[in-house]
Amino acid sequence: SKSYSVTLIPGDGIGPEIISVAKDVLVLTGCLEGIKYEFNEVLMGGAALDATGVPLPDLTLSTAKQSHAVLLGAVGGYKWDNNPKSLKPETGLLQLRKELGVFANLRPATVYPPLVDASTLKTHVAHGVDLMLIRELTGGIYFGQPRGFGTYENGEEFAFNTEIYATHEIDRIAHFAFKIAQKRRGKLCSIDKANVLEASMLWRKRFLAIAQEYPDVELSHMYVDNASMQLIRDPKQFDTVVTNNIFGDILSDEASMVTGSIGMLPSASLADLGPGVFEPIHGSAPDIAGQDKANPFATVLSAAMLLRYGLGEEKAAERIENAVLDTLNRGFRTVDIYSPGTKLVGCKQLGEEIMKSV
Amino acid sequence: SKSYSVTLIPGDGIGPEIISVAKDVLVLTGCLEGIKYEFNEVLMGGAALDATGVPLPDLTLSTAKQSHAVLLGAVGGYKWDNNPKSLKPETGLLQLRKELGVFANLRPATVYPPLVDASTLKTHVAHGVDLMLIRELTGGIYFGQPRGFGTYENGEEFAFNTEIYATHEIDRIAHFAFKIAQKRRGKLCSIDKANVLEASMLWRKRFLAIAQEYPDVELSHMYVDNASMQLIRDPKQFDTVVTNNIFGDILSDEASMVTGSIGMLPSASLADLGPGVFEPIHGSAPDIAGQDKANPFATVLSAAMLLRYGLGEEKAAERIENAVLDTLNRGFRTVDIYSPGTKLVGCKQLGEEIMKSV
Ligand SMILES: CC(C)[C@H](C(=O)O)[C@@H](O)C(=O)O
Ligand SMILES: CC(C)[C@H](C(=O)O)[C@@H](O)C(=O)O
Repeated sequence: SKSYSVTLIPGDGIGPEIISVAKDVLVLTGCLEGIKYEFNEVLMGGAALDATGVPLPDLTLSTAKQSHAVLLGAVGGYKWDNNPKSLKPETGLLQLRKELGVFANLRPATVYPPLVDASTLKTHVAHGVDLMLIRELTGGIYFGQPRGFGTYENGEEFAFNTEIYATHEIDRIAHFAFKIAQKRRGKLCSIDKANVLEASMLWRKRFLAIAQEYPDVELSHMYVDNASMQLIRDPKQFDTVVTNNIFGDILSDEASMVTGSIGMLPSASLADLGPGVFEPIHGSAPDIAGQDKANPFATVLSAAMLLRYGLGEEKAAERIENAVLDTLNRGFRTVDIYSPGTKLVGCKQLGEEIMKSV
Repeated sequence: SKSYSVTLIPGDGIGPEIISVAKDVLVLTGCLEGIKYEFNEVLMGGAALDATGVPLPDLTLSTAKQSHAVLLGAVGGYKWDNNPKSLKPETGLLQLRKELGVFANLRPATVYPPLVDASTLKTHVAHGVDLMLIRELTGGIYFGQPRGFGTYENGEEFAFNTEIYATHEIDRIAHFAFKIAQKRRGKLCSIDKANVLEASMLWRKRFLAIAQEYPDVELSHMYVDNASMQLIRDPKQFDTVVTNNIFGDILSDEASMVTGSIGMLPSASLADLGPGVFEPIHGSAPDIAGQDKANPFATVLSAAMLLRYGLGEEKAAERIENAVLDTLNRGFRTVDIYSPGTKLVGCKQLGEEIMKSV
């Protein structure tokens, strides 16, 4: 039987609770599908800062690099919010992304029919939303040099960052996005601000060039301000969406809120070679940490993405996704997605119910 | 009686139709309130490109600079979309903002009770939304140097922009925002990405410092990705919101779509000294230009902002705002805000109805 090494990074806040459920689901699914795992649990974010003084310890990075895939809970919390940049939990996550070269971030925004009422959008607008947002994850203003602080001659302070994209960075995310669009409904919308920013002009130019290689995909372009409107006005117009790092940060969270249940949404961050990082799109929710209230669905669905995109185990991925649907259909809900008539359970018990459905 | 010079810039697309209505409303209101205008109509955007070869002719800029206020329709259109940056209609608008120093952009997002159904958000979520988004308009990545294109030694092309803020730029928008918040419900939410960007760290530091001078305003901070979710989840949590140029571009459009009727939303762009620019937040809508279908309400409400913020004529401003409400209550609608049971009219006739209500 096949065997994979998986790095587990529980992180902060509700991270440990949700990772624990996802791990159990992986083990059981693996057993049924003939897959074995070697799990290595390591520290990152605030937990790593407290234990080792840095947000991404060397051991965490080397463990991740040597594994087949990384399953991550969440990082961050009030406790470390005022730390300098190099000592922020988030900096550990950014370093991990950069070191693993996971340039392609897949963020599906899917409305589950039993949860359509959770959306603040009208039912007919939210019903049937099924889009895949692809965010460039290792370039742009997040990592651009130069960056920092300075002082003008008159003593006035300033601060700056650089939004920068090289052709090869745009090309590889473009190819990635066209290929995903091919497997979906064949529509790709590239989002930029090419009416103002040079970095966006090159982005658009490269997408237009690469589109020639994918005649079966219908490419369109939208300005980021318009996209932020269209996601609310008519989210169903979108199939596959691709954008840069900072616009992707903003729009993917917006798209996820359109579904109304960000506790349901997984993500995958993929490199050309080497392990991907799989994590829920929600945060570490420090206010409910340790109270057995967290929703583990998004992390369990991230484990499914790990199987599909990280290990190529499509059948096992589908088994998990079907188990999630079945658990929803049997009426089990954590408090964030609870509605009258359904069964309210904690994180652990929801995990047990998912296991029954696997 | 008082007399003001007002620069009219119809611009492109539906610009001329909506400016024509707003001008008539200004004239009538002025007559009733003892205000006279000297109007000067000039070219900008695509119209200026076609006539003079540049998007912001010298005559337009000098006319604007010598006037008390600028009323703008909209610029842009498919025709010029592939022009190089210096020959884009949008570049004319950016130059005008920079030259006039209109650093403070006020974008109200208000849900009009008779139009609450136009929002794609559920009625109880959209009803009562009344937020003021303040966008920094002459700094940040829109204008930051260096910017442009380059080639690496290996021949690969790259493109870049600089997000940069100096202390005085942050301080003046902060003071402006705190003062607006004081006149509203006393809550100011500053939006940044201080967990990743140095430019945002300085932004947050300055807001915290300046908050000391406004003990009556409750300051909070939110990351831009979270803000893009919260605007959909619960837009009523916001009173006054302030953010940088690019985040403001994205979030103000999102906030406006929350109301469901961007055809209703005006904006004001103000300098420390000199004329402000007043314009609807919607675009030039080239697809319906010249068909008498455009909604002039947002431009008429921009004329009201011109009176209030540009000329200090509060009473005349309120007269226009009341006329808009009255026209809505009498059931008149353009097609973008039409619903069964209301009276569908064109741009011109809606103008006539507003005049009856003035
Ligand atoms: C935690 C933060 C650095 C991160 C980001 O901005 O990328 C998060 O918001 C995300 O979207 O994964
Ligand atoms: C037309 C464009 C340059 C402009 C901007 O990005 O500022 C517009 O989107 C706006 O928000 O006024």
